[in-house]
Amino acid sequence: MKKPNLILSHCFILLFVSNLFSQSLAEKLGYEKNAKLLIVHADDIGVSHSVNSATIKAFEQSGISSASIMVPCPWFPEIAAYAKQNTQYDFGLHLTLTAEWKNYRWGGVLSAKEIPSLLDDKGFFYATAEEVALKADPKEVEMEIRAQVDRAIAFGVKPTHLDSHMGSLFSTPDLFQVYLKVGASYNIPVFIPLNAVKSYPQLLPLIDKDLIAVDNFYMMESNRSNDEWTAFYKNIVENLSPGLNEIIVHLAINDREMQAVTIDHPDFGSAWRQNDLNTVLSSEFKAALKKNNIRLITWKQIMDLNK
Amino acid sequence: MKKPNLILSHCFILLFVSNLFSQSLAEKLGYEKNAKLLIVHADDIGVSHSVNSATIKAFEQSGISSASIMVPCPWFPEIAAYAKQNTQYDFGLHLTLTAEWKNYRWGGVLSAKEIPSLLDDKGFFYATAEEVALKADPKEVEMEIRAQVDRAIAFGVKPTHLDSHMGSLFSTPDLFQVYLKVGASYNIPVFIPLNAVKSYPQLLPLIDKDLIAVDNFYMMESNRSNDEWTAFYKNIVENLSPGLNEIIVHLAINDREMQAVTIDHPDFGSAWRQNDLNTVLSSEFKAALKKNNIRLITWKQIMDLNK
Repeated sequence: MKKPNLILSHCFILLFVSNLFSQSLAEKLGYEKNAKLLIVHADDIGVSHSVNSATIKAFEQSGISSASIMVPCPWFPEIAAYAKQNTQYDFGLHLTLTAEWKNYRWGGVLSAKEIPSLLDDKGFFYATAEEVALKADPKEVEMEIRAQVDRAIAFGVKPTHLDSHMGSLFSTPDLFQVYLKVGASYNIPVFIPLNAVKSYPQLLPLIDKDLIAVDNFYMMESNRSNDEWTAFYKNIVENLSPGLNEIIVHLAINDREMQAVTIDHPDFGSAWRQNDLNTVLSSEFKAALKKNNIRLITWKQIMDLNK
Repeated sequence: MKKPNLILSHCFILLFVSNLFSQSLAEKLGYEKNAKLLIVHADDIGVSHSVNSATIKAFEQSGISSASIMVPCPWFPEIAAYAKQNTQYDFGLHLTLTAEWKNYRWGGVLSAKEIPSLLDDKGFFYATAEEVALKADPKEVEMEIRAQVDRAIAFGVKPTHLDSHMGSLFSTPDLFQVYLKVGASYNIPVFIPLNAVKSYPQLLPLIDKDLIAVDNFYMMESNRSNDEWTAFYKNIVENLSPGLNEIIVHLAINDREMQAVTIDHPDFGSAWRQNDLNTVLSSEFKAALKKNNIRLITWKQIMDLNK
């Protein structure tokens, strides 16, 4: 009867070893195997003082767990100084190749002569990801986004992750490869939203199986009325799947500055962003996270797995 | 008795001719010889949305007669679009070689590689005119300020005059020569405040006698309390001399954006600028201009004399 026992014990060992290798991300982070992990993430930091102060408020009142900074924007120095002083908060970089607003625009960190394929005739980034897809030379994109990472680091920011403003870096396989390459070369995790990327089969084969991807990402939709806001996000939280999830919010104070930045553009406009801020700060949203046993995590926790 | 008559008539002719050549600026502009000419001028346009909207308000409510735009600043596109559409208002260029605020800064129109002597290690302009005086290569200054003029023109602005942010271009004879040269080459009048320049005897010989200079310029002083504001400016108006005068005001709405721009700097700060706005819009200030028979003029009137 020894043989079966031996087999059984071998089985146990195999099971143990295979279990070790197939640990879920949640387990690797110290949570239960099927934990619902969630990053509540604010975008577009550095665009304006309004966005910076809303983001700081959201961090300090535990409304978000992570945020990403746009290095080429006018208010970058303000948020960089804050991030340098407040390393308890999770700041990544919102790699930027577009400048979408009407009267308030920016160009690259590099000079116009270094990145001619990324700029319009006024020296600003193009307004849309479609134009980037059509016109950007991937070599110039790589130089520019490396310059953005280097500039953030020079200002004392320690980026916990990289993502892509308006998804420009997902707009062609070549740009997506640049994005993955730059993340790998700095050893900084990159945001890859599997539920969105699945619609672009040409991107999927480029994603190395060792990369930690976000299973589901969520964002506010157009044409929602103010009073639907909290219900929209609460519904996401109540139906969250186990695995890695990210809700992307766009925070600002609805003030004169932000109204002028987003003029003629109600989607992602000033009121929209104030609604997002109100929601993440609301007791209703926070209670939903708690009630649904959501594990709020940061990108730094993910980055630290690579150490 | 013919001879004396002939002499007399010759004298009249000579008097008439000499009078023609010695016409005062006021007369050339169509005013009485000893008119008190005044430009009420707003600086720093383009720095922020707050400054832009205060300036537009001041133009539209006849609080100012002229203003000058900072081309390298983040909100330049907003005011350039307005200036292009509203040619009835007098916009010049506030040539910019400094970026004085703590968390909100800018570099040049040209790239860091083209103007290394003008930028700090972060790629921003220096904070003070003293640093510009010490470090700026006049050749790079000339390239940069020409690029500012060219960029303004490319955006549809038709500059009526040039002046110098924080007086950087008055800080050395070499830079002052660059300023005069660039103004002459574009045929745009430059602001030369004689009462201030007199303290710098090395600049005086550089001023061609044909240039139209401002006899007296005035600006708010430090350490004034809010309730002294209107009296300070009213006193200037009541004691104005005949000739060309300019009052330089710094306008903004005292809002969250402007408070953040000017953080830790009460002089020329957000409240200061709101005080300036309140003053130029006040009926008290406007009544003082009227009562003292002040001729409010624009730089465009001066520029048009050269046509």
